[in-house]
Amino acid sequence: MDLISSLIKTNNTKIIVLVIDGIGGLAHPSTGKTALEYASTPNLDILTSEGATGQILPIDYGITPGSGPAHLSLFGYDAIASQIGRGILEAYGVGMNVSGSDVAVRGNFCTTDQDGNIIDRRAGRISDKIAQPLVELLKEIDIEGVDIELRHVSQHRFVAVFKGNELSDAVYDTDPQVINEKPLLPKPKNLEANRTVEILNHWIDSAQEILRDRKDANMVTLRGFSHNPGLRSFIDKYGLNASCIAAYPMYKGIARLVGMEIVENVGKEVYEQFKLAKNVLDDDQSDYLYIHVKETDSCGEDGDYSGKVKIIEEIDKNIKILIEANPSVIVVTGDHSTPSIMSSHSWHPVPLLIWAPETVRIDSNKLFGEESCASGGIGTIKAKYLMNLILAHSQRLKKFGA
Amino acid sequence: MDLISSLIKTNNTKIIVLVIDGIGGLAHPSTGKTALEYASTPNLDILTSEGATGQILPIDYGITPGSGPAHLSLFGYDAIASQIGRGILEAYGVGMNVSGSDVAVRGNFCTTDQDGNIIDRRAGRISDKIAQPLVELLKEIDIEGVDIELRHVSQHRFVAVFKGNELSDAVYDTDPQVINEKPLLPKPKNLEANRTVEILNHWIDSAQEILRDRKDANMVTLRGFSHNPGLRSFIDKYGLNASCIAAYPMYKGIARLVGMEIVENVGKEVYEQFKLAKNVLDDDQSDYLYIHVKETDSCGEDGDYSGKVKIIEEIDKNIKILIEANPSVIVVTGDHSTPSIMSSHSWHPVPLLIWAPETVRIDSNKLFGEESCASGGIGTIKAKYLMNLILAHSQRLKKFGA
Repeated sequence: MDLISSLIKTNNTKIIVLVIDGIGGLAHPSTGKTALEYASTPNLDILTSEGATGQILPIDYGITPGSGPAHLSLFGYDAIASQIGRGILEAYGVGMNVSGSDVAVRGNFCTTDQDGNIIDRRAGRISDKIAQPLVELLKEIDIEGVDIELRHVSQHRFVAVFKGNELSDAVYDTDPQVINEKPLLPKPKNLEANRTVEILNHWIDSAQEILRDRKDANMVTLRGFSHNPGLRSFIDKYGLNASCIAAYPMYKGIARLVGMEIVENVGKEVYEQFKLAKNVLDDDQSDYLYIHVKETDSCGEDGDYSGKVKIIEEIDKNIKILIEANPSVIVVTGDHSTPSIMSSHSWHPVPLLIWAPETVRIDSNKLFGEESCASGGIGTIKAKYLMNLILAHSQRLKKFGA
Repeated sequence: MDLISSLIKTNNTKIIVLVIDGIGGLAHPSTGKTALEYASTPNLDILTSEGATGQILPIDYGITPGSGPAHLSLFGYDAIASQIGRGILEAYGVGMNVSGSDVAVRGNFCTTDQDGNIIDRRAGRISDKIAQPLVELLKEIDIEGVDIELRHVSQHRFVAVFKGNELSDAVYDTDPQVINEKPLLPKPKNLEANRTVEILNHWIDSAQEILRDRKDANMVTLRGFSHNPGLRSFIDKYGLNASCIAAYPMYKGIARLVGMEIVENVGKEVYEQFKLAKNVLDDDQSDYLYIHVKETDSCGEDGDYSGKVKIIEEIDKNIKILIEANPSVIVVTGDHSTPSIMSSHSWHPVPLLIWAPETVRIDSNKLFGEESCASGGIGTIKAKYLMNLILAHSQRLKKFGA
């Protein structure tokens, strides 16, 4: 990918990348079509007939990705080389910074019985109102040689960042993932993690002491210890001022990790998100706008085929708002497939549409769907190459060689 | 590929991989179709209409593979990194074991004139009845510091395995590949092979001494000196208990090298092979069953187009037996193409069909043939990625990343 960075040139084109989470699917027995194929999408079909299509492999053949690596690939990073822990995603999702040897970790409040065995791993999903003051109490823990930042996320969830020199993220989770067992002790994966584990033990003991007599949540578990993977930023790698429109913390987290500006107060309605997108581009501050629509994935995970159809139709109805923003390139794709008949992420390729009136080679495909995109002119590509195509179609790459 | 091993989970799905050797072809002038396209294959076409198709590149664009590397790729190994000698394939094909620095080599009985020049490189393809006692005689050769195992294969062919420490396979063949010349001396490819060459010289001299006065075969040649490449086994790499149904030693050899159980007494009739396959799966001992049909390749090599058509129709007629075994995944493909108009292996991509009722994304292709599969939903993939897809479709891979 260094080749790409070496070829970057800048111009005033605008790029929109619409990531419809989990958009790819499998045929539903009742219709013989995927949700995307069954949905009425006249506007996406117009873009398709004016654009080029194909399908993307999020990571590689047969690999079902989590949202983290799937997005990193869409953004042009090698998701296998740069694996990102849950802790760092959560921390970046709520706006915290993690650098150097700092270690971020996701925390859960839980309840334990008098023997210390976990009764509820999520403390009955306690309300923000109860959890926030608990996080404030834990902020009082002071350990020499390390600064500890805490942030409440929502309900029982919080993030902790341990800041200091020579800390290690090579530590096993303390969440046993089952009830009726004690939280695990933080164990080092190698010798270098011993000091970090001492600090963590000290912190966990103090947290337990503070919470001991609370009925709502008397213990914590920690998982996903992780450093900042130190990814190059979009501006450095691509010369792009990038912005993110996403309602959910995790996606904001990934976007912040690659240096995108996070648009705040994003609602969950597609109409609002697209309006916001248009405003951002009209403001002329961003070259590249990542828009994340979550609900297609949620419906897929819930096995809700008709719900997924409905969201897709909602997107289709509003897509003209994005065109009104006058971008040079619109990409419509997903981070991965989430077939509702599997109720989970899957490895199946994801439909890809590149609309770029001035530069695209239009293929014969006139329908935005899995089957039709599979034989589109772009072919089947790994997601990590999508950024190359985006940069090319926005004329932001110089010629390679004489 | 370590990523795949790290994602393996197990379940009770059954996988059938039907390798129709040399299935891919070129259009015959008399029909304008390949053997596969010309053959009547109503049952394979039903599977195709219910499955996903594509084409595989055995090794890479333009590379015509031998059966060894072609199969290694189908099994998910890097056939360029792990090159397997003829000696090791022969040894594993007849059930011998080769480990550490042991060296396996293929032996031929031959006849030489009084000056030692080769008259017949195959000793008139002497019968097993004559050759077997000759192998027994050669077993009496004793050399200090090395154990020598011999096994008759068939006709003039045998395998020798030299077992000991610090032996080297960096030795040139002694078979000059032409007549009217003396067998070559075993020459070292590097200094480390000197001791092995001494041992081989000693052994060849003794063999010549023993055979000197035989009319039927008075000399031997050796070729394909090779160590065991030390491939990870299927159970270690994929968590799969794998079995092999193949009639020919070479294919059994490759299967044994990757740790498959070899089903014995496999006949050459497709009907029998498929019945045996069903029994193996019904027995519940195997998760993954590799079935090898050789005759399509033999017909291709012989330029026998109509013979190839006939075998394909035979496979089609019996394919329902495999479905009755109730597998979660059936893959139908070949190790490479063998166009009968070329009478040889070729580099052309090989049609691929993945049938997996619960997990496959059905494409629009309804015919199992070269042209139709070329535009199938899977696209054109390197054979080494097929195992990823097989594992995914049998739901044996965990999600990658958070």
